[in-house]
Amino acid sequence: MSAVPDCLRADDMRPTVRAALRDWLEIQRRCVFDPQRARRALAKTPDPRRVLAELGSRPGRSPVPRELETLARTGTLAVPFGSAGYPERLARLTDAPPLLLVQGDPELLCAPAVAIVGARAATAYGRATAQRFATALARAGLVVVSGLAAGVDAAAHAAVLDAGGRTVAVLACGPDLVYPLRHRGLSQRVAASGALVTEFPVGTPPRPAHFPLRNRIISGLTRAVLVVEARVRSGSLVTARHAADQGVDVWAVPGPVDSPASGGTNRLLRDGAYVALEPDEMLEALARDGVPLARPEAVAGVVPAVSGPLRRVLEALGDAPQTRDALARLLNLPPEGLAPALLELELADAVTEDRDGRLRLVSPPRD
Amino acid sequence: MSAVPDCLRADDMRPTVRAALRDWLEIQRRCVFDPQRARRALAKTPDPRRVLAELGSRPGRSPVPRELETLARTGTLAVPFGSAGYPERLARLTDAPPLLLVQGDPELLCAPAVAIVGARAATAYGRATAQRFATALARAGLVVVSGLAAGVDAAAHAAVLDAGGRTVAVLACGPDLVYPLRHRGLSQRVAASGALVTEFPVGTPPRPAHFPLRNRIISGLTRAVLVVEARVRSGSLVTARHAADQGVDVWAVPGPVDSPASGGTNRLLRDGAYVALEPDEMLEALARDGVPLARPEAVAGVVPAVSGPLRRVLEALGDAPQTRDALARLLNLPPEGLAPALLELELADAVTEDRDGRLRLVSPPRD
Repeated sequence: MSAVPDCLRADDMRPTVRAALRDWLEIQRRCVFDPQRARRALAKTPDPRRVLAELGSRPGRSPVPRELETLARTGTLAVPFGSAGYPERLARLTDAPPLLLVQGDPELLCAPAVAIVGARAATAYGRATAQRFATALARAGLVVVSGLAAGVDAAAHAAVLDAGGRTVAVLACGPDLVYPLRHRGLSQRVAASGALVTEFPVGTPPRPAHFPLRNRIISGLTRAVLVVEARVRSGSLVTARHAADQGVDVWAVPGPVDSPASGGTNRLLRDGAYVALEPDEMLEALARDGVPLARPEAVAGVVPAVSGPLRRVLEALGDAPQTRDALARLLNLPPEGLAPALLELELADAVTEDRDGRLRLVSPPRD
Repeated sequence: MSAVPDCLRADDMRPTVRAALRDWLEIQRRCVFDPQRARRALAKTPDPRRVLAELGSRPGRSPVPRELETLARTGTLAVPFGSAGYPERLARLTDAPPLLLVQGDPELLCAPAVAIVGARAATAYGRATAQRFATALARAGLVVVSGLAAGVDAAAHAAVLDAGGRTVAVLACGPDLVYPLRHRGLSQRVAASGALVTEFPVGTPPRPAHFPLRNRIISGLTRAVLVVEARVRSGSLVTARHAADQGVDVWAVPGPVDSPASGGTNRLLRDGAYVALEPDEMLEALARDGVPLARPEAVAGVVPAVSGPLRRVLEALGDAPQTRDALARLLNLPPEGLAPALLELELADAVTEDRDGRLRLVSPPRD
């Protein structure tokens, strides 16, 4: 049984490496729409030559000569199934891809990661929420995985890069193509400090059928999948289904019930997904599941918000209880002018009246 | 043991009725902030005279003479604990009110009901959603219970009235007062075709402490409580807690995570409330729980929405599969002009390509 290296480089000129790489690329091309078949053969032997024999392929027939050139030119690494660099949790899938092609840092495939996915036609709310969660998760040291699509995906990738974090984009096309084209710049930024990953051979254009396949890799690389906005019929729900099948926690961000962009996410919640309100709550849950975080101490409670005029009353109350008259004087109000604000604050359980008639702040509970 | 009538009328001049009514009003006044005490006494005897003895009160001491007058003038009925008109599920609470004062139709207290509650400072989204659910629940023959407050409550009451349905408002003040004052008109409409209910004696002004008490009656009258918008600290969450304690299902409407008005509702969802997306889904759940609905056949599935340009493609596909070229001709487009819309529809799983290259609609799944 041959030892399998971490990853194969197309510019490695040793004949054994070139032969192995050619075999893996042939397996990839043969099984791109039937990864189960490759996975079954790989369960019997990690040797690509024997796998090809299992598959009934003549070794070395493909790839086209330019394929190795393209991989070398684009600095694409090949991570075969069974190698030390192949992510362990992805390997457990019965349809694990036989080969991953990676531009950037292949170690990120095995780092603790969370997926953020969602609608291409995201609303401003969706993009802002993706950004907020991506920033917080990246700051906690997690790799953020997404699909380089417009909308939520792009917002998540960009936010991680802006925060100096690490992000992985899983592609639905070959490693030499960019889809959508307008994300060329984003894709280069991801490759430069994170990684682009695909199971599709060089030159493969993006096709509708590729996206659902691709989505199993997104969930297969991650410990949790966060769906930010998704229509009722959407690829993000495919990712969520993969995640659920793979035992990966699915989180969804609630949205207005009359917003089509939140139709799918709200249904995920109805069907039992975790409710994603604050990144810190996700981080707490991940920490409980044993996912290592860079700064678990950053996980803090939620501070309730109080708007302007009421805040004046709260501030005037400060730390010391006050009688109604004293409070009114502090605020330059007649006592009866204070009544509506006090009623509202008492109803909101923010202020209470002591037995001696003095008003005091209720200490905020932690959610 | 004396037989207890359905309800007592202040204009009933029979001495026994007047005596009983006076006794109940005295129990009410004595126990308004300690209903448990009245409830314990009532567990021993349904006779108000004996209950007063238990409570250590002299019978007939209160009420003030004008109390009966006010009740008669405002057409307020008294429904004592243990009478046939007292709602059975409310009676089970250890803090069930000893007496309910009702303007309007007292039979609604015992009819199948759902509560719709939420923020006073509701957003347009919250008001519209309250309206939509209230209309649908009322059309299914359910009584809609709420608290006559500004915002969600008022939107729910008004929508039910506009739909010709029946609505009950539970007050945090005496039956002779209106809070907030600007809801006088709404309150009269509710009394005319529904009911106003309170446990508070004549002349009781609304106080912050009354609202949480009042909220247990809202949940005690209903089979489900729907919270439409609620801040993190809000009376609606008190109602939800009462409901959960009473075994009443809590539903919450999701909203944007960055909207303070949805902070409390989203947290209810996080903590296990049912996700309220469509009134029909609530009605289905109520029907499963044996709640009788007027028109169970009105409960229908959800129709997915597709926007303008894509709809043209879907309509052109009609019932018969088409080749790409034939479809493009139908739409007066060059075949390549069709590609983006088709990609989107294929990604959305709405259109698929047959093995013979013809496009056809995917039959919509029922959610």
